[in-house]
Amino acid sequence: MDNLKRNIESFLQDANSSLTLEEILSVIDGVNASSLALNDTSWLNMLSIEKTPPLELNLLNLRRARIIEIEGSDNVETSKTKVDKLRTILREMNVNGLILPRADEHQGEYLPSSAERLSWLTGFNGSAGFVVALEDSAAVFTDGRYTLQILQQVDQNHFDIEHITENPPIKWLEKRISKGDRIGFDPWLHSADALRQFESSIESKGGKLVALDANPIDQIWKDRPSAPLSPIVPHHLSYSGKPSAEKRKVVCEVLRQNREGAVILTSPESIAWLLNIRGADVSRTPLPLSFAILNENEHVSLFTDIRKVTNLVTTHLGNEVSIFPFNDIGQQIDSLVNRDIKIRIDPKSNPAWFERYIDTNKGIVSYGEDPVLALKAIKNSIELTGTRNAHVRDGVAFARFLHWFEENKSLGQLDEIGVANQLKSYREEDPLYKDQSFDAISGSGPNGAIVHYRVSPATNRILRKGDLYLIDSGAQYLDGTTDITRTLAIGDPGDEARDRFTRVLKGHIGLATQKFPKGTTGSQIDVLARAPLWSIGADFDHGTGHGVGSYLGVHEGPQRISKTPSSVALQPGMIISNEPGYYKKSSYGIRLENLVVVQAVNLESADREMLGFETITFAPFDNTMIDASLLTHLEVEWINSYHASVRQTLGPLLPPEVASWLEKATMKIQ
Amino acid sequence: MDNLKRNIESFLQDANSSLTLEEILSVIDGVNASSLALNDTSWLNMLSIEKTPPLELNLLNLRRARIIEIEGSDNVETSKTKVDKLRTILREMNVNGLILPRADEHQGEYLPSSAERLSWLTGFNGSAGFVVALEDSAAVFTDGRYTLQILQQVDQNHFDIEHITENPPIKWLEKRISKGDRIGFDPWLHSADALRQFESSIESKGGKLVALDANPIDQIWKDRPSAPLSPIVPHHLSYSGKPSAEKRKVVCEVLRQNREGAVILTSPESIAWLLNIRGADVSRTPLPLSFAILNENEHVSLFTDIRKVTNLVTTHLGNEVSIFPFNDIGQQIDSLVNRDIKIRIDPKSNPAWFERYIDTNKGIVSYGEDPVLALKAIKNSIELTGTRNAHVRDGVAFARFLHWFEENKSLGQLDEIGVANQLKSYREEDPLYKDQSFDAISGSGPNGAIVHYRVSPATNRILRKGDLYLIDSGAQYLDGTTDITRTLAIGDPGDEARDRFTRVLKGHIGLATQKFPKGTTGSQIDVLARAPLWSIGADFDHGTGHGVGSYLGVHEGPQRISKTPSSVALQPGMIISNEPGYYKKSSYGIRLENLVVVQAVNLESADREMLGFETITFAPFDNTMIDASLLTHLEVEWINSYHASVRQTLGPLLPPEVASWLEKATMKIQ
Repeated sequence: MDNLKRNIESFLQDANSSLTLEEILSVIDGVNASSLALNDTSWLNMLSIEKTPPLELNLLNLRRARIIEIEGSDNVETSKTKVDKLRTILREMNVNGLILPRADEHQGEYLPSSAERLSWLTGFNGSAGFVVALEDSAAVFTDGRYTLQILQQVDQNHFDIEHITENPPIKWLEKRISKGDRIGFDPWLHSADALRQFESSIESKGGKLVALDANPIDQIWKDRPSAPLSPIVPHHLSYSGKPSAEKRKVVCEVLRQNREGAVILTSPESIAWLLNIRGADVSRTPLPLSFAILNENEHVSLFTDIRKVTNLVTTHLGNEVSIFPFNDIGQQIDSLVNRDIKIRIDPKSNPAWFERYIDTNKGIVSYGEDPVLALKAIKNSIELTGTRNAHVRDGVAFARFLHWFEENKSLGQLDEIGVANQLKSYREEDPLYKDQSFDAISGSGPNGAIVHYRVSPATNRILRKGDLYLIDSGAQYLDGTTDITRTLAIGDPGDEARDRFTRVLKGHIGLATQKFPKGTTGSQIDVLARAPLWSIGADFDHGTGHGVGSYLGVHEGPQRISKTPSSVALQPGMIISNEPGYYKKSSYGIRLENLVVVQAVNLESADREMLGFETITFAPFDNTMIDASLLTHLEVEWINSYHASVRQTLGPLLPPEVASWLEKATMKIQ
Repeated sequence: MDNLKRNIESFLQDANSSLTLEEILSVIDGVNASSLALNDTSWLNMLSIEKTPPLELNLLNLRRARIIEIEGSDNVETSKTKVDKLRTILREMNVNGLILPRADEHQGEYLPSSAERLSWLTGFNGSAGFVVALEDSAAVFTDGRYTLQILQQVDQNHFDIEHITENPPIKWLEKRISKGDRIGFDPWLHSADALRQFESSIESKGGKLVALDANPIDQIWKDRPSAPLSPIVPHHLSYSGKPSAEKRKVVCEVLRQNREGAVILTSPESIAWLLNIRGADVSRTPLPLSFAILNENEHVSLFTDIRKVTNLVTTHLGNEVSIFPFNDIGQQIDSLVNRDIKIRIDPKSNPAWFERYIDTNKGIVSYGEDPVLALKAIKNSIELTGTRNAHVRDGVAFARFLHWFEENKSLGQLDEIGVANQLKSYREEDPLYKDQSFDAISGSGPNGAIVHYRVSPATNRILRKGDLYLIDSGAQYLDGTTDITRTLAIGDPGDEARDRFTRVLKGHIGLATQKFPKGTTGSQIDVLARAPLWSIGADFDHGTGHGVGSYLGVHEGPQRISKTPSSVALQPGMIISNEPGYYKKSSYGIRLENLVVVQAVNLESADREMLGFETITFAPFDNTMIDASLLTHLEVEWINSYHASVRQTLGPLLPPEVASWLEKATMKIQ
């Protein structure tokens, strides 16, 4: 390590560079906090120095050495120490307590490790959590998915463990605060809407909710990871399908209609779509973390770590995008406020900091949804072509995987981790493959019944005869994002499982084939995927479908298919998943998921505009699990014709042995 | 008339009564503004004088004479005169305009004629309307149902005609007001929520929304009808199933949970349910118009015209109900405010007056839905028994009607008015019959395609061979409220109509037979009634089901089955309609409606609590309109078994010739 540093310093001297070793180490720590693969050298572009091969080699090695150094330096403090420190700092900040969600400044699904404050404080690393810490008590809240995990990870001498919907933070807090109590929060981590309920509840008890100038955890978290740092890269027109200038024009028309002079964007997905850029700041979603202000005149101020903006992207961004460091955002808002410009903010997704800042400075706020959300959801024809292509290639990888699985499943040697890795390795062969689109769910037997199961070495299970095996996975390709679930039999899982599998498939088909009038929402048609299960008193406790991005988030809104009431109409060009399931606790799980594209449908008899779904996922269902006696004639026809399209689409692209296996596996059912 | 008056005055003198003729005339005008039938003498109880037969006769005759006198005195002013007067009074009130909904103080579906201000001002008497009047312009707004009617009724020299959703009042107003404009409103006629949008829109233009102390229309409306006056009558335990004291206890538990000290009730349906009282103030719904304050200690203050509270109901109400005139409500609220009592108001249904009054007096408001709404919707077992009984008797009347229709339909002599009256006359034979539950929709051929068609002498149509005839009607019986729609063929309406009829029936069956988990809302299952139509690109543009009261409103919430997102779960004991339809403009309309009761369902295979529907309407569907080739085996089974239950239930109660007709009409389909 020291050698590497010395080498690099002498390179810097020789090149007469103004760059310092500290600056380089700071970049490397940021890169190591990002999701940039070790073999990805694009980060070198963030260093403004001419790179000779030997310097590059030293830099790449320094990155590796730094990873090892930091992993070794793990500072293990006990919960007690951490909580004590937290209470001290809260006293210094003149508050009696703190509310802290698992969240970052972007309300993102995947958090950078520097934002994993809740995990650092409590040890709990599930994807949904909330902490309330008071002077004498504290609690961690999560949902039913993590009931067991949280008990294992959190020290209950210092934290109560609570179910986030059964005994929500707000109720827990209400019982414990007294008149005059001041409860602190970090205004960057909560949306304005999320705070309102806390505010009224705390005030009803005579307390006060207090915005803190700094996050107290950050004051006491030694060795807090760097913020992620990865170069922002252009997302080319051949994938995005529409120049950023055109997109900005459309968004600005929305602003003008509302007589808004500017909108604050804090969702990195929205900014990535708007500016046709991508990045590698977090796992699974190709995002550059940033904020932006889009002015009604179509000019954008982009706030990010300016080191991410290398020469490769400045031309792409063009003159209408000005780059600022994060810290300049207040100053830029001041200039809007001074000009009496009405600023649109989204109280559901923007950090509350913005509403408060504008209010304090007597600016004019206009409340409205992030205007990119609705536009981004409707894919243009180039995005749709890209996604269809990605799905064909993903189908090839998946068919090879299924063939491999068929060949090996009875050996008694496959385990959940290994099987998921095998599928991943087929996908990684694709030149446009970038990442998984989420951490695969690979569950056999009873593990399949855990809806959000993540296999770990501790739970990893050998696949046995008579098991059902459920694999829910997807990939990020440069031209599209995939997400597919299949449930596969090893031997004969029995009549009941076959009955449930067939009902899940009936639901899947019911949804896939339904025509519906323009204006229909996902919550209106959700029941179609459930009715065959409801008939026997069963159901599945998750949504039926989520929106999917175009080389962006695998979970995106505003559309979805679920029980939750929604007023978002399904529109042509939206991509959405169709994934009913059935779960028998401690026994088995079934889920069958394809992605579909909403599209216009012509019906001769129609007296109104009608829509329907095009299924874009190509992978066979396990015919051995189908009980044809439960199917209607139309359902049998759909399965046979879907399997025919899978054979036609993938057949020519498959190795001969896989193609011939596919022929057999998708024989017509009667 | 003068004779009658003299007679009555001498009776009064003889009885040494303190009652004056003016007081009697005031009662009679109120009675004539109510829905009390001419042969209903219960109103005499509102006169505190001993009634001898000759006095009674004179009083009853005076009521009739007074009707004739008032009808004759119609003061016909032109729109111009009315609008001019309105503008003068608005200037005197120091406002530049007025917003005026078609509404009364109770946000009721049926308005007393004294509240028909919009109709008086504009001539338009549809059931949905809104007026905005400014200094130089004015507009009347209504929805698609009344597009034609409003053009015929409103003088377009003085009013713009606008579509209420396409160009809503708020937008129309926004374009026309300027800085400093003051727009008046009557705080008794708008809910607080309804005003908020107006307020922010008017303020964004620099104007001000101003609450008026009196309704300006009332100042200029000569011969404005009296407020309705009908005696409040007890609704006995044998029908209500639960003493008022018990109901109040349950509601007060809700208040206590929310730490609310009182709730303001302004829906007469809620008050009628809570106090087990009924009345005849408006048509079609047996309501006494009133307000109430329910205190957390279960005591009720009832605000109404105290003449309605005769000796017959005071004992029933008991000591825990205090009666006040309407005007005392402010004073009663003052006493809550003075004791720092948190007062619950419903911003969706209470007149905005209450929120403003409490705010002005610095009282503590708690926002929440009218707490009776959710409780009233779930019928107790005695209410359900009553409703089932009412439906059997209604079924008998309907079967007699169908038989009569069958016998006469081909004569070419039936018209829409006559047919509806025939059905009404069968129902009126029932001793518990009180009223229609709404104005029947009786539409043949093209008139059937008008969803909210009301036959009038001008539109009345002879039923012809090849027509479809749609009759949607219902009754108020003391033990329950009914609502049924059937569509009947006269001759052969053709294959297309038969296809559509069968699809509507498939939707009806799909909904009627679906089992669903506890927690399911009506909007989740709405699609089941539409899917067979959607498959051919058709749909119906109305809700699928509305809640139904127990000898109360035929349209009640909070449950409904519709496209509109809802978070109200269907619960055992709720009554709801199942009424899909299909309408071909200028050609024919089809609707098939039964009422159903939500109930628990036991399924052997169930892993959760399941619910389903019990159909309580007994009337055959027109078998000649069914295309069995479109039906699944299960659908055929359902129709045959429904028809069998109709025969079994009604058969023994029918005249022999009707019973034998019913046998034939409901023969098994294959």
